[in-house]
Amino acid sequence: MAQSQQISSVYSTGMAFTTTLNGFDITTDTMPDAGGTGKGPRPKALMLVALTGCTGIDVVSILNKMKVAYTDFSIDVKADLTDEIAAVYEKVHLIYTIRIAPADRERFEKAVTLSMDKYCGVSAMFRKFATLTRELVFLDAAT
Amino acid sequence: MAQSQQISSVYSTGMAFTTTLNGFDITTDTMPDAGGTGKGPRPKALMLVALTGCTGIDVVSILNKMKVAYTDFSIDVKADLTDEIAAVYEKVHLIYTIRIAPADRERFEKAVTLSMDKYCGVSAMFRKFATLTRELVFLDAAT
Repeated sequence: MAQSQQISSVYSTGMAFTTTLNGFDITTDTMPDAGGTGKGPRPKALMLVALTGCTGIDVVSILNKMKVAYTDFSIDVKADLTDEIAAVYEKVHLIYTIRIAPADRERFEKAVTLSMDKYCGVSAMFRKFATLTRELVFLDAAT
Repeated sequence: MAQSQQISSVYSTGMAFTTTLNGFDITTDTMPDAGGTGKGPRPKALMLVALTGCTGIDVVSILNKMKVAYTDFSIDVKADLTDEIAAVYEKVHLIYTIRIAPADRERFEKAVTLSMDKYCGVSAMFRKFATLTRELVFLDAAT
């Protein structure tokens, strides 16, 4: 049976809405120039956080299963928006950066590919409205 | 010129990635049964928070411009996921609940329609991969 998720986002003041997700309160808002009081981030970019969080979990899980050691792992995103109203992400570029032994770089690349092409639901959704590209950056292995 | 947004999500431990967004740290993670330590919500549902936050800002802005008074405004979402790997949202139902004078209900409906059909970029993106439906619930006006 298909899974279902439910959330409830409650308005407080300004442009602030608060949602309790897995026990954590997430508040979105705008800055005063758009009627808000800056109680939280603007909502749209949470989609990018969902994207890095999702593919990040996949990559860490796969590296752990392969017993590959690494440090300094981060995922950056540069997302270009359309000029339209409403503005939507149209080009989304992910940069995976990691410090890992040269012998393990191919495994890391495989983990990223598996996530982006198979396991990560958020990237599957993004691909329906945006062009997704990626690059891998290898930091020198720990000295 | 098209706008661009950039984020950087840094891995810490377990399955936790932290992103600083408009000055706020957002951490996503999983529970221990999936290798995490529960430092934050799971990432996918942040997309739903982006959706309610986005349409909520529109609706509040429009009601403010119309000088319509209201209280107890919330937006719930029920989102059904596909059974596939990777699971994606396929049916997303929004429930807008508000306490507002009967004479202003039509304006509220107009504000919701403008948001969903015109202004909200997140709903425009969702519509590319999911069926979006909505209902309005009116609480009795303040007694």
